Amino acid sequence: MTRKNDSPQVVIAGSIALDTIETQFGKAENVLGGSASYAGIAAGFFAKAGIVGIVGNDFPEKYFDFFRGRGIDTGGIEKSSLKTFSWHGRYGFDVNTAETLKTELNALQEFRPVLPEEYKKADFFFLGNFDPEQQLALLSQMKKKPQLVVADTMNYWIESRREKVLEVVKKADICLMNDAEARQLFKTPSLAYAAKKILELDSKFAIIKKGENGCILFSKKGWFSAPGYPLETVIDPTGCGDSFAGALIGYLAKTNSLEEKNFRKAIITASAVASFNAEGFSLDRLKKITQKDISGRIKEFKNITRF
Amino acid sequence: MTRKNDSPQVVIAGSIALDTIETQFGKAENVLGGSASYAGIAAGFFAKAGIVGIVGNDFPEKYFDFFRGRGIDTGGIEKSSLKTFSWHGRYGFDVNTAETLKTELNALQEFRPVLPEEYKKADFFFLGNFDPEQQLALLSQMKKKPQLVVADTMNYWIESRREKVLEVVKKADICLMNDAEARQLFKTPSLAYAAKKILELDSKFAIIKKGENGCILFSKKGWFSAPGYPLETVIDPTGCGDSFAGALIGYLAKTNSLEEKNFRKAIITASAVASFNAEGFSLDRLKKITQKDISGRIKEFKNITRF
Repeated sequence: MTRKNDSPQVVIAGSIALDTIETQFGKAENVLGGSASYAGIAAGFFAKAGIVGIVGNDFPEKYFDFFRGRGIDTGGIEKSSLKTFSWHGRYGFDVNTAETLKTELNALQEFRPVLPEEYKKADFFFLGNFDPEQQLALLSQMKKKPQLVVADTMNYWIESRREKVLEVVKKADICLMNDAEARQLFKTPSLAYAAKKILELDSKFAIIKKGENGCILFSKKGWFSAPGYPLETVIDPTGCGDSFAGALIGYLAKTNSLEEKNFRKAIITASAVASFNAEGFSLDRLKKITQKDISGRIKEFKNITRF
Repeated sequence: MTRKNDSPQVVIAGSIALDTIETQFGKAENVLGGSASYAGIAAGFFAKAGIVGIVGNDFPEKYFDFFRGRGIDTGGIEKSSLKTFSWHGRYGFDVNTAETLKTELNALQEFRPVLPEEYKKADFFFLGNFDPEQQLALLSQMKKKPQLVVADTMNYWIESRREKVLEVVKKADICLMNDAEARQLFKTPSLAYAAKKILELDSKFAIIKKGENGCILFSKKGWFSAPGYPLETVIDPTGCGDSFAGALIGYLAKTNSLEEKNFRKAIITASAVASFNAEGFSLDRLKKITQKDISGRIKEFKNITRF
């Protein structure tokens, strides 16, 4: 049996949220957020994506329409009788760190994701940042080993469930971490050393994200340094990591090559999409950009790294 | 009148120190340090450099021999009857920040630098990180406007003498700052905005350094992002900023072009030299590397940014 034509090529599992976000540029209330929303929309630029997540009884139908309008399969989105997960955060002068004002787990507490049958043979799988034990459980529902599993994690899980996070690193092909998380997980100040440890855990590639400073791709053969895009104005950085991840896996699914050369292109493409994401609240900017905008920014990335 | 053949092409003014440095890899006591030492040695790879600084009565003659052995003019180094300036610092787990255990200004208190006659027509001038008022005074001793003046500064001066630092930014062609300093000086979280402000102050280029994350060159036309070199082991990062600055101005003096294209090459060359500097205590590593090592690392920089 092969994947049916309408079944998703990329499965995106993660949170779906109604966020309230405050930055120097204003406040957006009850807007679409969550790792699966950002990653799903970003992946949708390149491939057929399906979202696995849970929403509450207050989740506006218009957001389902929005997902479907972008060609995203919503068959994996469960509906709870509780309210939708919600995060209220504020970015101050320094947009690199958010202050959490309120987190309401709501429906997310009940999230025991079950993959729809037609998702179980997808070749590309993104596990957003949630409990590593659940990430592993979700992965075990797959009927065949995907070509590429990308997982996200965060400091909270590294602190509370280090061993499980290490298992995710081992089981996933790529476990995305930022610099602080990689240092924390491998108890080292050196990113190059942390990456070496990741590669030793059966990973073909290690990607260490550095926020506005871009990211580094490490392989057994060497490394690739992708710059951050120096935005003059960051309206709202929420979801940049997730849109990076979604665009990365979407681009890899579309191009269907896991060679380092193609990975480098995927990383730049993902960086371009993530840089757009920061230019508006919620998914406002990603909604509006076109393939032409993305290729334009990729060209800029070429130009700003040429010497 | 033109510059005499034996007079320095690049003048490097700054501190000369006997440092004691502790890192996870050991302790180096009473070793050669100071911004002028690092910048001078780095510039010396590419051009005839002359150092302007002050040392104490305890400064070992062997370091004069070392400078001269590298072709560096020491005619601008004054001798004080006090002891040599000394910094005692410790780098912990995170090598990006040093803890100062002791600073003894000693001879540096008396530093009222006077340029030797044969330095006054140099085309390239580097002002290390010291009092901006003294940087301006030193600059005014020049008999003709240099082709390129690069100045360094730090948070201490931005806090205590903001107006004078802004004057240095205006008078120098390039005022080197790291990301935190640029944000502080222009009261903005955005590096792109800070760079725009620098360019408005009569600067042809703005360079914002980001430590292990490389640096960004901004011009009126656009920007260039240089990656950091992902070292697995940082033995001692002291002087990386100064070796970057020295190599930058030395390379520009050697190639004698201030076009953006050449600036990009200069920045990568400077990043290569600075990355070597972190591989040993004091100037231990810079002492040993050859032109071939530098070109090898520049090739690596090409490879790690290609996509």
